[in-house]
Amino acid sequence: MRRAVFSATLVIGSIVLGAAAGDSPTGLLGYSDESARAEREWEGKFCAIPNPDNMREYMRRLSARPHNVGSPYDKDNAEWILSKFKAWGLDAHIETYYPLYPTPKERVVEMVEPAHFTAKLEEPAVQADPTSSQHDEQLPTYHIYSVDGDVTAPLVYVNYGVPEDYEQLERLGVSVKGAIVIARYGASWRGIKPKVAAEHGAVGCLIYSDPRDDGYFQGDVFPDGPFRPREGVQRGSVMDMPIYSGDPLTPGIGATKDAKRLLLDQVKVFTKIPVLPISYGDAQPLLAALKGPMAPQNWRGALPISYHVGPGPTKVHLKVKSNWDIKPIYDVIARIPGTTYPGEWIIRGNHHDAWVNGADDPVSGQVALMEEARALGELLKQGWRPKRTIIYCAWDGEEPGLLGSTEWAEDHAAELEQHAALYVNSDSNGRGYLNVGGSHSLEKFINGVARDVQDPETKLTVWERDRLARIERAQSPEEKGEIRQRPDLRISALGSGSDYTGFLQHLGIASLNLGYGGEGGGGVYHSIYDDFYWYTHFADTQFVYGRALAQTAGTAVMRFADADLLPYDFTALADTLRRYLDELETLTKKERDETIERNREIEEGVFTATSDPRQPTLPPRVEPVPPYLNFAPMENALASLTKSAEDYQKAFDQASRNGGAVLAHAPLHPLNDLLVQSERKLTTPEGLPRRPWYIHAIYAPGSYTGYGVKTIPGVREAIEQKNWKEAEEQIGAVAKVLEGEASFIEAAAHQLQQALNP
Amino acid sequence: MRRAVFSATLVIGSIVLGAAAGDSPTGLLGYSDESARAEREWEGKFCAIPNPDNMREYMRRLSARPHNVGSPYDKDNAEWILSKFKAWGLDAHIETYYPLYPTPKERVVEMVEPAHFTAKLEEPAVQADPTSSQHDEQLPTYHIYSVDGDVTAPLVYVNYGVPEDYEQLERLGVSVKGAIVIARYGASWRGIKPKVAAEHGAVGCLIYSDPRDDGYFQGDVFPDGPFRPREGVQRGSVMDMPIYSGDPLTPGIGATKDAKRLLLDQVKVFTKIPVLPISYGDAQPLLAALKGPMAPQNWRGALPISYHVGPGPTKVHLKVKSNWDIKPIYDVIARIPGTTYPGEWIIRGNHHDAWVNGADDPVSGQVALMEEARALGELLKQGWRPKRTIIYCAWDGEEPGLLGSTEWAEDHAAELEQHAALYVNSDSNGRGYLNVGGSHSLEKFINGVARDVQDPETKLTVWERDRLARIERAQSPEEKGEIRQRPDLRISALGSGSDYTGFLQHLGIASLNLGYGGEGGGGVYHSIYDDFYWYTHFADTQFVYGRALAQTAGTAVMRFADADLLPYDFTALADTLRRYLDELETLTKKERDETIERNREIEEGVFTATSDPRQPTLPPRVEPVPPYLNFAPMENALASLTKSAEDYQKAFDQASRNGGAVLAHAPLHPLNDLLVQSERKLTTPEGLPRRPWYIHAIYAPGSYTGYGVKTIPGVREAIEQKNWKEAEEQIGAVAKVLEGEASFIEAAAHQLQQALNP
Repeated sequence: MRRAVFSATLVIGSIVLGAAAGDSPTGLLGYSDESARAEREWEGKFCAIPNPDNMREYMRRLSARPHNVGSPYDKDNAEWILSKFKAWGLDAHIETYYPLYPTPKERVVEMVEPAHFTAKLEEPAVQADPTSSQHDEQLPTYHIYSVDGDVTAPLVYVNYGVPEDYEQLERLGVSVKGAIVIARYGASWRGIKPKVAAEHGAVGCLIYSDPRDDGYFQGDVFPDGPFRPREGVQRGSVMDMPIYSGDPLTPGIGATKDAKRLLLDQVKVFTKIPVLPISYGDAQPLLAALKGPMAPQNWRGALPISYHVGPGPTKVHLKVKSNWDIKPIYDVIARIPGTTYPGEWIIRGNHHDAWVNGADDPVSGQVALMEEARALGELLKQGWRPKRTIIYCAWDGEEPGLLGSTEWAEDHAAELEQHAALYVNSDSNGRGYLNVGGSHSLEKFINGVARDVQDPETKLTVWERDRLARIERAQSPEEKGEIRQRPDLRISALGSGSDYTGFLQHLGIASLNLGYGGEGGGGVYHSIYDDFYWYTHFADTQFVYGRALAQTAGTAVMRFADADLLPYDFTALADTLRRYLDELETLTKKERDETIERNREIEEGVFTATSDPRQPTLPPRVEPVPPYLNFAPMENALASLTKSAEDYQKAFDQASRNGGAVLAHAPLHPLNDLLVQSERKLTTPEGLPRRPWYIHAIYAPGSYTGYGVKTIPGVREAIEQKNWKEAEEQIGAVAKVLEGEASFIEAAAHQLQQALNP
Repeated sequence: MRRAVFSATLVIGSIVLGAAAGDSPTGLLGYSDESARAEREWEGKFCAIPNPDNMREYMRRLSARPHNVGSPYDKDNAEWILSKFKAWGLDAHIETYYPLYPTPKERVVEMVEPAHFTAKLEEPAVQADPTSSQHDEQLPTYHIYSVDGDVTAPLVYVNYGVPEDYEQLERLGVSVKGAIVIARYGASWRGIKPKVAAEHGAVGCLIYSDPRDDGYFQGDVFPDGPFRPREGVQRGSVMDMPIYSGDPLTPGIGATKDAKRLLLDQVKVFTKIPVLPISYGDAQPLLAALKGPMAPQNWRGALPISYHVGPGPTKVHLKVKSNWDIKPIYDVIARIPGTTYPGEWIIRGNHHDAWVNGADDPVSGQVALMEEARALGELLKQGWRPKRTIIYCAWDGEEPGLLGSTEWAEDHAAELEQHAALYVNSDSNGRGYLNVGGSHSLEKFINGVARDVQDPETKLTVWERDRLARIERAQSPEEKGEIRQRPDLRISALGSGSDYTGFLQHLGIASLNLGYGGEGGGGVYHSIYDDFYWYTHFADTQFVYGRALAQTAGTAVMRFADADLLPYDFTALADTLRRYLDELETLTKKERDETIERNREIEEGVFTATSDPRQPTLPPRVEPVPPYLNFAPMENALASLTKSAEDYQKAFDQASRNGGAVLAHAPLHPLNDLLVQSERKLTTPEGLPRRPWYIHAIYAPGSYTGYGVKTIPGVREAIEQKNWKEAEEQIGAVAKVLEGEASFIEAAAHQLQQALNP
């Protein structure tokens, strides 16, 4: 039987044989041999179904017109997806929410000194690209959730506009107080830039795409190549998402028609100053006219100018005004009821809304999800019935701030908290390597899936290709050694920037984010050029990575849904927490050592001695030396967690012995229902300091990185922000969470032991 | 008396008080207290004399017209310098040599495909800059000692054109066989680029100044700022100087009128392929038209284009033809005879020839040397008589290949080998920090000098300012710790690129190269814009660093000339050799480890797995694993040398005790005469493999770096070039040299002991 599955996979050429070391003999975590044989057969059938040609046609349809929130085609797409889900035999419906969705009314960027220049703020149509000319339907270039404003002020170039950049500016003797700053895209999420600028007293903010990071420096520009052309602009949200995601007016609750809403002036996630995105074509004259100190070497981009920081003589007039309307969003939800465990839910999502035509973002991910849905529909027709309930979701309103997913998660919070076992997300998809981010209790599970999917270019498994690439990238023999010796590849932690946030960080649902990428690249992100023409010329043109994504995510969904015992693994969680704790201890020591050294150098006169009188720099400020922190509570808690993870592992291994027969027959219902809660135990009722919406104690988007994750955020950000008192408090809070998780796992281990030896 | 000196220095505001730890109580190495008091008085008088206004006027005169070799103004300048030396009371004359000095006859660079473009190859005059319009006298932009040639071929971009760049090209599947390469200036000396290109089969070479390294990326361009404008070109020599410097036709002997000369086709130091320098203005269309793989990220410069490597479609026609003439060069030599030790010579040099007007290179250094000469003339008039003979030299023909200094050194080799105790070189001078390169037996001595010169900007000593800057730059706590704890600052080893090479590396004369720099920067090197206007607007505009250089070099010359006992220190030499030996052992281990790792990755399939099929890269080649090398002979020799350096140090310390009276009165004549030979002992009669002209076993310019030094070059280059047999042989050869030096120092220690306790 097993052989039969293998030869079937050879025929379809996309599933790869062989169980990896560390897996049970069946190769499937949490499966008896018997269940695994059946599962492998169904998975083999599933993986043969996703069809690149279908994905191409879905993309052609979904990206044919601009389909941002509020546009007719956004609704049209939702209804079309619904009709497809239904046609494939799924029980589907649309859920509608009503979030705030401002759109541009007035946008002005002009240089008024030392010369006059008016920024175009427009992306021209490209002859070869048919949808680029749909100007009437395209949303103008803007930053959603910028406040309205009308300011005229000298310009200051602030590099990426992250906090360290302002420390540099201070050393250059440059203040942004009363100035408009111009920051380049990159290094942080865009919403962080106006936030930090405002904190430093700026009155306006421009964000541009420097060709060094996003333009000709990276490669040939569109339409000759995939990279951002001179007038291309990156739209996007500047909501202060590290406070909460979703509708700004309804934090924590679903934005239903009658929901209680905040007044506009009560909202904390709008920017404090007006902000607009501009192209490098529009930015160049402004930057070229700046004088003042030269920008530090690593601030300089690829425009053919000498980068100065200002302030002035460039003076800019910036005006932003929006229509502050509420618009409907349409989440398409399809449900496959589980048989054995209908109360344990596996949720799979990808958004369907785009800034403009959005072939890459999000349609390239959405088409994979649709082929998964179609394939599961096929399997249902063939008699497959998942043990657990599967919910497929095409989210709306991701671009402005994860609206569709967040509102749905908030609206269904109570049942999700009870039932959700796993959320699997995807978004844009491209050529290259499988990227996995997620909860570390899922690390072993998703490694197993990745070992079973074939890379379309190399015909290696996507797991093996990734492993080899990691060996190549690793900088030290130790790092290379770990990759070679560790049975599983590490997965990254999730920050924010896609639809998992509401599930993982607001509700504590174990989550995965999957996607392929790393080859090809491009520069049409959030521009009118992210369309069918671009995607089919420069990205996954044959949709073979689209198929690989459907196979990966679909296999993950099925395998989680059908397991005898939910395949969480807590040893990887403990191992990862060990690394995070080491990082925190190292970070604290580094802060101490650096402060001591810097203070000493200030005292020695190093900085005054090395200041060039013609380009003077100020010494940094003397800072109090950080105290030693008491990490013992976390160490003790982690020791407990590690021990209970090992105990659970032992019970799990025992259950998997002898074909895992016991798994198929022991009464695992209560244990499975319990395990669904394992990620919830990593949350705290009070949430993170100053942002109670984020309740996960291990993963959060950084307050000053935006999308970028901060692990053990309460402690890490307190250290980074030199708030030593809060750091100590948070160590205690996190220790409590870890103790709770340890007890939980110990209880699960005990239950499993009992189920095995009743 | 000492106090008097101090207050005198306060008056002149440029000499700084205080003896540093590690110096004798007098503060002067090799001096009795009595001699030191007299010396300090004379040095104080000396340092008060150099006058910034004079230097400005010398520069105005010397840089008033182009004065390259063979130009009327070159001779005129030599004669004017001679007249000055004489007017200041020095015994001076001109020595004339007759080297080969080709000048441009025909120069063509044109793109013939895919479009037509003819490179201007001309630097336009700049309105504000009066000498930039002296077109009739300006030497056209070219590379001297390029062979003649006329080739048309596809273009390949090779980054800096160093050997590793060709390894990268091989991985990209790109060959330069039959191609013209275009390399950017930087990373290696320019002469290396056509050499490596030819070794890889290229038929022609262009070298351009990329604005990333030398243009607007660095700062505002001339005349708005000091950096290289769009049409600025860097002329220069492309002679294969790592084989020998000086006249190509007379290696090893002076290029006197009747010297036996090589025929042109016997010369090994010409390029193998034609080469021309071009501006970034001329380079841009050529580079913009290239297709083929994208250049690796760190190859990309600051032109507003996507950097591809080719080959083609850009096809270039390159034609170079020279007048292969012999031209006279004029070395101006002034001598101050020594009283006690007339047979021990201190030589001080700076060149006077330039590529065009050369205000920075070399006149900024030459004017300091002239003020030193004037000041010494003044002291002579006041009754000062140096113990040793001092020789001041204004070299001609440095730019084409260190012609004037090398021919003089070769011509006077026999007497120099017998008499030369020290050569002190300088070249261009600017604002900032004192840079010292040289023989490590002089490290302690020159640290003493640097502790006595005041930095004009910070009023710290130049030693202290440098020390603080080094603390700031140091990357690790260990590095910072060493700088803080070590009594002396380390000096760098000398490669090539200025007039010390003939002395240090061909004759084994202990040498120093001194200059200020590191602030301001600029991009007029070897262009028509390196002139009085540029220097007095953007460089050491007040000539205060000119004065600091005169004070530094002049003090070094006087202090060496007047010492009772020559102030060599061998502990720093031993300490430095320990570091070099560690480096060689680490390098060998690194080569082994990297080869083993790379071979393993090739076998694992890492490189095929990570090759993007749309931008394929080839795996590197499997290479034999380097053997372990037997460093024991060098270890043993270095142990001996370290021991004898300590013995000498003990004797030296003993001699310095009690006011060092014994130094003033012991019979030190034979010991001083012996010590003059100490650097000579670091040479071998057979010289370096394949380049016998270079006889110094510790310092040489790298065969593939050009100017950049390779320390213990016989061993280091053998390891780098994976020639393991030669590495073993060279370890033996260097061990013999170190044993010889050890014996020599031991003998000197013995002599000193005997002189102290007769």
